Amino acid sequence: MRMLSEANGSIAGAGALLNIMRDGRARTRAELIQLTGLARSTLAQRLDALLSRQWIVPTEEAISSGGRPAVAFTFNRTARVVLAADLGATHARVAVTDLGTAVLAERAAEVPIDRGPEETLGWLQHTFEEMLAETGHRPDEICGIGVGLPGPVEHSSGRPVNPPIMPGWDGFPVPEWLGSRLGAPVLVDNDVNIMALGEHWAARPEADHLIFIKIGTGIGCGIISDRRLHRGAQGAAGDIGHIQVASALDTVCRCGNVGCLEAVASGAAISAKLCAAGVAAEDSRDVVRLVRGGNTQAVQLIRQAGREVGDVLASIVNFFNPSVIVVGGDISEAGEQVLAGLREVIYSRSLPLATQHLTITGSELGDRAGVIGAAVMVIEHVLAPGSVDRSVSPA
Amino acid sequence: MRMLSEANGSIAGAGALLNIMRDGRARTRAELIQLTGLARSTLAQRLDALLSRQWIVPTEEAISSGGRPAVAFTFNRTARVVLAADLGATHARVAVTDLGTAVLAERAAEVPIDRGPEETLGWLQHTFEEMLAETGHRPDEICGIGVGLPGPVEHSSGRPVNPPIMPGWDGFPVPEWLGSRLGAPVLVDNDVNIMALGEHWAARPEADHLIFIKIGTGIGCGIISDRRLHRGAQGAAGDIGHIQVASALDTVCRCGNVGCLEAVASGAAISAKLCAAGVAAEDSRDVVRLVRGGNTQAVQLIRQAGREVGDVLASIVNFFNPSVIVVGGDISEAGEQVLAGLREVIYSRSLPLATQHLTITGSELGDRAGVIGAAVMVIEHVLAPGSVDRSVSPA
Repeated sequence: MRMLSEANGSIAGAGALLNIMRDGRARTRAELIQLTGLARSTLAQRLDALLSRQWIVPTEEAISSGGRPAVAFTFNRTARVVLAADLGATHARVAVTDLGTAVLAERAAEVPIDRGPEETLGWLQHTFEEMLAETGHRPDEICGIGVGLPGPVEHSSGRPVNPPIMPGWDGFPVPEWLGSRLGAPVLVDNDVNIMALGEHWAARPEADHLIFIKIGTGIGCGIISDRRLHRGAQGAAGDIGHIQVASALDTVCRCGNVGCLEAVASGAAISAKLCAAGVAAEDSRDVVRLVRGGNTQAVQLIRQAGREVGDVLASIVNFFNPSVIVVGGDISEAGEQVLAGLREVIYSRSLPLATQHLTITGSELGDRAGVIGAAVMVIEHVLAPGSVDRSVSPA
Repeated sequence: MRMLSEANGSIAGAGALLNIMRDGRARTRAELIQLTGLARSTLAQRLDALLSRQWIVPTEEAISSGGRPAVAFTFNRTARVVLAADLGATHARVAVTDLGTAVLAERAAEVPIDRGPEETLGWLQHTFEEMLAETGHRPDEICGIGVGLPGPVEHSSGRPVNPPIMPGWDGFPVPEWLGSRLGAPVLVDNDVNIMALGEHWAARPEADHLIFIKIGTGIGCGIISDRRLHRGAQGAAGDIGHIQVASALDTVCRCGNVGCLEAVASGAAISAKLCAAGVAAEDSRDVVRLVRGGNTQAVQLIRQAGREVGDVLASIVNFFNPSVIVVGGDISEAGEQVLAGLREVIYSRSLPLATQHLTITGSELGDRAGVIGAAVMVIEHVLAPGSVDRSVSPA
């Protein structure tokens, strides 16, 4: 049944045609007929639908021998803009991109998420409007809005689900609130999922199975299985911060359980340990600053944290057999000091077959992974065949 | 680039047409043109290709009002047969099925895998030939052969990779050996992957994300992500028997590491513990027999094994967020005694969001999960659009 509807979508619609043209090559009617097997009249209807929405544009290509040049068509990546935001616990990064994730405008700001949804999203709406104006685009050119949040999100509804560090956000209708004010569809996901999407798209497009682990105030991961985001049954996949580790059984976590990874290896846990030892460290960034400055206690703690994260990842490598593990988040900016402990445990604990070609590396996009991923989430959604079909068919 | 080739495959080929027809509904030319947008002449070519190979058959449907009945076409699930085998450490189960996994003939036998590939596969070839004759089918009607093996397999080549309990099988070209003798393509995978495929297809088709865990002599799992088998980068995904558990740190595993799940919770580990306590138990089946007979030590050990497996699965539930966990393998036949310990730990350790709708259950197919899954593996492969396109195009 599922196969039927997928096949229908692919064969029948303008969306499938656009999917072929997304690679940017110009193609004539004759080429498209040969490629798709569509009847000439059907192809004409599909092309008209896409042209009227400017998803594609005609270009003159001098490919016919003699005679007048044949008209060809290409994907128009500037047809629309995407609004993308990565909202963290305290910082936000916001961008306007084209349909190829090229950044047209970008901003970073201190925006505490605990001020609640209306104040935060109000700021976001205002910022999006300003940036859109800067780029010279009109509101009707927004094809979609992507937002990452630092907590669990039910992806289908776009609503946060009991997010621990986001008071007032539980069940808040983010897509409706933002969509009604900006006049475009809104997709919401948790921050680690969009970071995985961004890193995969921009830096590791060849990887079939990728895990993006974020070590910041908390710890979580985004999972790419067979080149697609694996969100799990309740959208809760990747929540590894509360996996139990043997070395932490005497530590109570904010979740109420004992022994959670996050309670010993997160930025919050490391800075608490440093404070207890008389070293001033308020958050993840302070920890990284101390490590870079060569503070021995900070270096020891961060290597140990790497080992504890490695302990959890060693099991995940056996279970999931990824080709790449990317480490991001504030703490990852301590670089090789984190990766060392992590690699040490994974290579000694995981099965040789699963580690022989495994790459363990820092994030290439760094603190831009989330905002690029938010744009990717929108682009993959609006350019999906079924979605394009709905947008070009008469209401 | 990837999208392009996928889209081409879907739009262009006879395979996409067959994919539409796999649901078994009869459809006329007019319906198929409407459904696909294909030109009448293109559709005719595709239908001819499928008819000549008997993938579809014409049926007369009296759907036209008055006039003569229009010709319709339906998928022909009896067009070909599949040979399927699930080879375990000591037992084998073999079947001949149609393209809908209906079993036409089936056998179970004691076949020790450690006799090496030539003797084992020689027996398999002979058995397949006998069973095919029983069903009245000819060798040229075999569309493919699926084989499950009790060890790691590189799925792309079909060769075992350092399989610990299969002396002589490392790198053995199973597909070439069997394919050249039976004249059909051969697909090979490890036993737990095909069990996951079989259980998902036959008993849990609605589950998007499923984990099938086999607890027998060893422990392993098969993973369904977004309704597809997740094999991982080296085909090693699901090898959870060597994940470290805290309660086993004083136990050396046959893999050389300490603390592996398999070293404390497998059928082999439980029967060894029973023997050490003076209770005669040679293997998993003896353990199950003792549990069913109410032997207190066996019951205690099997509940503890359930807790240890639950400990590993609790982490996997947080990471992967499956909708269903199916427990199979010999030890699972102890039923609720195993499931009790497993559920106890998962529900207390995993995140509430990930367990609120989680089903943890025994296998419905039991010891037929593997052989049905081997047939599913072949059917999904031979009926994939690209595969059909190659088979119907002139050489």
